[in-house]
Amino acid sequence: MQECKIAVIGATGAVGRVFLNILEERNFPATSIRLCGKNSVGTNLKVMGENITVEEVTPKLLSEVNLAFISATTSVSKEVAPLASAQGAVVIDDSSAFRMDPKVPLVVPEVNVEALETHQGIISIPNCSTTPLVMLLKPLNAINPVQRVIADTYQSVSGTGAAAVKEMKAQSSDILQNKPVKSDVYPHQIAFNLIPHIDDFHDNGYSNEEMKMILETRKIMENPDLKISATCVRVPVSIGHSESVHIGLSSHMSATEARSILESAPGIRVLDDPSDSVYPMPIVAEGQDDVYIGRIREDLSERNGITAWIVSDNLRKGAGLNAIQIAEELLVRDLMHL
Amino acid sequence: MQECKIAVIGATGAVGRVFLNILEERNFPATSIRLCGKNSVGTNLKVMGENITVEEVTPKLLSEVNLAFISATTSVSKEVAPLASAQGAVVIDDSSAFRMDPKVPLVVPEVNVEALETHQGIISIPNCSTTPLVMLLKPLNAINPVQRVIADTYQSVSGTGAAAVKEMKAQSSDILQNKPVKSDVYPHQIAFNLIPHIDDFHDNGYSNEEMKMILETRKIMENPDLKISATCVRVPVSIGHSESVHIGLSSHMSATEARSILESAPGIRVLDDPSDSVYPMPIVAEGQDDVYIGRIREDLSERNGITAWIVSDNLRKGAGLNAIQIAEELLVRDLMHL
Repeated sequence: MQECKIAVIGATGAVGRVFLNILEERNFPATSIRLCGKNSVGTNLKVMGENITVEEVTPKLLSEVNLAFISATTSVSKEVAPLASAQGAVVIDDSSAFRMDPKVPLVVPEVNVEALETHQGIISIPNCSTTPLVMLLKPLNAINPVQRVIADTYQSVSGTGAAAVKEMKAQSSDILQNKPVKSDVYPHQIAFNLIPHIDDFHDNGYSNEEMKMILETRKIMENPDLKISATCVRVPVSIGHSESVHIGLSSHMSATEARSILESAPGIRVLDDPSDSVYPMPIVAEGQDDVYIGRIREDLSERNGITAWIVSDNLRKGAGLNAIQIAEELLVRDLMHL
Repeated sequence: MQECKIAVIGATGAVGRVFLNILEERNFPATSIRLCGKNSVGTNLKVMGENITVEEVTPKLLSEVNLAFISATTSVSKEVAPLASAQGAVVIDDSSAFRMDPKVPLVVPEVNVEALETHQGIISIPNCSTTPLVMLLKPLNAINPVQRVIADTYQSVSGTGAAAVKEMKAQSSDILQNKPVKSDVYPHQIAFNLIPHIDDFHDNGYSNEEMKMILETRKIMENPDLKISATCVRVPVSIGHSESVHIGLSSHMSATEARSILESAPGIRVLDDPSDSVYPMPIVAEGQDDVYIGRIREDLSERNGITAWIVSDNLRKGAGLNAIQIAEELLVRDLMHL
């Protein structure tokens, strides 16, 4: 058994806390765990039965671990990842800092685990909206190449962080009591509202979140010319990102065939009996590992189209779980070194 | 001046109340107003300065008016509309009962007012998700024919009715207090959740709401073969239906050109400065007459694509306002008779 001393940077954030829970649930074979968090140094967290004190990230700390999981800000990732990697740790990074770097594998284990084989110390996990999308596309693409993708998202506030969940709840409570609303995390009220704005905007009118979905999907699907468009919208939901996806395939596929392909795909749970009110919803996906797919039908705007509705827990498969699955694959495949 | 004695059937429902407010706002030239409502007979409402008692719908009442506006249930429309029309009243109907009837004009005045000229006593207004969609499509189509449309909706609970707004608020309050949630109006909790299910499902996997958008858009655009797909989703918002729309045109159009065409189209307000956090949102559109359009950009999944985000007040332009605009056109065009 390889030694696996891990550091979790951003341990007390929304993703960090879920990551620690999943470590426990899966009984991850860590030989030691160090926790770091900019604003929570000195806090004690109980992880896998042990009380662990949150520390500052230092070069010394990074030199004492061989696996670093980073889910903080992009600037923390840019600083910490190269430092950890230079000292021999493998880094699994949740930020967008390295995702498009051709030397960095961008991995969803169910989709492109083989990309891990050539890692050079830093491995990125995709954006929480990209991961469920490629899990839907990959099994269909293997049978009938995907030509075109449109994804419109309905993203929960936990994707922004714990402060956003708090803000949505406080605003909801204020509105129900006819009190004025305060917005700090978002530029507008999110309670009982929708905000079609996630991250900054590019000159082409797309938000950075939309461009991440587009570029990351092309990279993971190894199809740099894939025709793909996305609109990303923040909705007043705590946990669970949903997407309405319209897929153009190379040749005709029936909804029945698409359903059967997806039912046997790893990490996917098909929930598709709408007449009995059975379909994916955020309240179904919250706390679950699987990506839920339903509303599978032929797309009436395409000759060879399939459309589907997907929901997944953005903190789990969209972030923490995907990272831990990558770590498990690194251990199984003996890839915890350069 | 033509005499205009109107009856409002469904006067105390969510749409009925907004309809009455808009009558006042626009100082609609009614010579008399009768109100009907199944569950509110005897209630007094103040309309245009007058106290009016809600009555039962009877053949006699219908024979005494020359314009009937119906926004109740589809079965009420099926019963009342032919009766009113047979007695010489013009009916403006908000249900889906007659929309696809080739003899019934399906009208959004800014889009196809000329369809009123051949009415035979019953005029339908489109579904509240179809109206803003065709208002976006029509001006672009006039310059550059639309080949393909994908619309994913984010529909507010007031589209279901006043009871749904009450249920969403009660559930929100219960969840914020960690109390169990009761669902009567919807099959699932709608507070802090999404439900990809509006109306019953067809054998092709589409909901009736989705098929309405598809078929009504084809009828209004006079393009029975239009390639169009939709996914309709209920979101925890009180008022305002939003849609992410992806349009395939016949030839290239820049986002700047699309914006400029839409800026001069009637009934549309372009709000499109995302870097300054300016875009349509439900809290912006609520209570407003215009259809708000923003996030206009080239669609990266199409060679000739435009994508946009639209929000409109589903009770106003999506229902009551559109009906009153039709009545105004009937008066101006001297079409208040067969």
